[in-house]
Amino acid sequence: MTSPALAPAPLTEIWRGSLLESLHLGHAVICNGAGEVVQSWGNPDALIYPRSSCKMIQALPLLTSGAAARYGLSSEQLALACASHNGARIHIDRVSSWLDQLGLGEGDMRCGAQMPKDEEVMRALIKTDDSPCQIHNNCSGKHAGFLTLSQHLGAGSEYHEIDHPVQQACQEAFEEATGETSPTYGIDGCSAPNFACTVTGLARAMGWFSSAHTRATRADQAAVDLRTAMALHPELVAGEGRACTALMRDMGGKVSVKTGAEGVFVAILPEQQLGIALKVADGATRASECAITALLVSLGALDPNSPSAKAYLNAPITNWNGIHCGEMRPAAELVFTA
Amino acid sequence: MTSPALAPAPLTEIWRGSLLESLHLGHAVICNGAGEVVQSWGNPDALIYPRSSCKMIQALPLLTSGAAARYGLSSEQLALACASHNGARIHIDRVSSWLDQLGLGEGDMRCGAQMPKDEEVMRALIKTDDSPCQIHNNCSGKHAGFLTLSQHLGAGSEYHEIDHPVQQACQEAFEEATGETSPTYGIDGCSAPNFACTVTGLARAMGWFSSAHTRATRADQAAVDLRTAMALHPELVAGEGRACTALMRDMGGKVSVKTGAEGVFVAILPEQQLGIALKVADGATRASECAITALLVSLGALDPNSPSAKAYLNAPITNWNGIHCGEMRPAAELVFTA
Repeated sequence: MTSPALAPAPLTEIWRGSLLESLHLGHAVICNGAGEVVQSWGNPDALIYPRSSCKMIQALPLLTSGAAARYGLSSEQLALACASHNGARIHIDRVSSWLDQLGLGEGDMRCGAQMPKDEEVMRALIKTDDSPCQIHNNCSGKHAGFLTLSQHLGAGSEYHEIDHPVQQACQEAFEEATGETSPTYGIDGCSAPNFACTVTGLARAMGWFSSAHTRATRADQAAVDLRTAMALHPELVAGEGRACTALMRDMGGKVSVKTGAEGVFVAILPEQQLGIALKVADGATRASECAITALLVSLGALDPNSPSAKAYLNAPITNWNGIHCGEMRPAAELVFTA
Repeated sequence: MTSPALAPAPLTEIWRGSLLESLHLGHAVICNGAGEVVQSWGNPDALIYPRSSCKMIQALPLLTSGAAARYGLSSEQLALACASHNGARIHIDRVSSWLDQLGLGEGDMRCGAQMPKDEEVMRALIKTDDSPCQIHNNCSGKHAGFLTLSQHLGAGSEYHEIDHPVQQACQEAFEEATGETSPTYGIDGCSAPNFACTVTGLARAMGWFSSAHTRATRADQAAVDLRTAMALHPELVAGEGRACTALMRDMGGKVSVKTGAEGVFVAILPEQQLGIALKVADGATRASECAITALLVSLGALDPNSPSAKAYLNAPITNWNGIHCGEMRPAAELVFTA
């Protein structure tokens, strides 16, 4: 395990006119269903925080504990548990109903209030001089899942604390899926612990998700249910105008993808039994979106002529007059050759 | 001249918990008043677009042509000509008056409409279902300056085009100040050409600005007037909550600084007759703000206990609950030793 600063490879280029204006470096790993590294770029041992890219791992205990079955959670709720959503009506209405189902309220959440990205809801809040609440937080679905597990376990209200049974279960699931003992954790934007792992560890976890249908443990079934729920409800995992939603839509429910803050992106490809994890060393989301799109196209999972490929692979850089000033391009090295 | 991707040095670190989560690399150069390199980090020959960091260079012809004197432009107008402003009332009211003074209107601008960063104006637009106009564009002061020069020269309406006398004058001033023949240009966010130079060229231009009071040409007087106007009106150059404004306020009118898109930052230090230019290779503004603050503190120009130093040097990273999750830190190498 080494610093993400060590030996990164080019991932994404920012061009303006004839000049390479900016360059994003980073690390990417593709693992097979057995957790073996198939191909890597940069430093596969770089230690990272997966941030929101590991929400499907954090949701595993919700299913393996029996909580999801007991509460009869729908595939929509499972998708929301893995979501970094826009706070659109389709998200906040479902999270509100979920809290109702638990007999809980917004005040029981610990994610903090966040102005939603969704334009319609954001404008409505401003027009009525209202403040956003915790349900608008992009992680509110994950926290509804945490609350469900906590209630199932009969545990205390501070479900986001590192020594709470919910987070202990998350750590155990995380270390199981990544095949690593996490050396440290950070506090995430939503106040939950985020456990560190190597880029390889995160790719290994995604590889494990991708091959879960070939195995039969409770955790494997949970992995299949979660990856399936994500791919089935792309609009719930992020929202309109977001890469996760656009990419999953264009891959027709066959692949699950998830972004994480500070330039992380993962993908689960069940047909090929492959998992991808990548981290942009400087933390830029624009670069992670371009790089994961390049790998998905290179792996044959995404049609290069699909709308999302056109939007994220060579994203045009336009200005306030709509003039085309340049474009984002994946690094030439970002090709699957294994 | 080489790519900004070549041989960058660490500039800014992003820490979360005990882990270096992300790292920003880049290039920085300090030049003296004679244009000689005093110290550099990364690759001083990296070819970059200065973007908005060179607005004080783009404003030089407005003064050297005699236009500023003819129209009696105030120091506030000169500061606005160098600004990337928030579109707050203090900015848009002054740009509107300036257009009135020219007998022109918003439709004569070519910068495009942009939703302002200023919270109050942005919320007011949303509440009344109004769209932002070109005066809200962060570059509207620069464009008012372009229009003034164009009118003074009796030139055509398309003042943003590369072969227009206004842009030809800007290119000449740019090449004079940087001491380089610009090899290419890109189209900026506001549709004006942005000429490329090396990081050293941009630092040389800032060094030239810093020593302009020791010389007596028309261009030197223009440089003094512009840098003085910026330092005198920090709130007009950017706005509340912005690094340029906060840093200039804390340096009490003695130093002029300016940000540019894609991770560029410059500083003009007349007392020390030094100029700084830096470019974050990945284009991140957060990193350029931290790095320029570190250099200003290291040069003794900024009190490390000032509000802006505390805000930008080791900026705390807080989450939706206001919990301190980590911080931004300048790289240890970013120390002035010359």
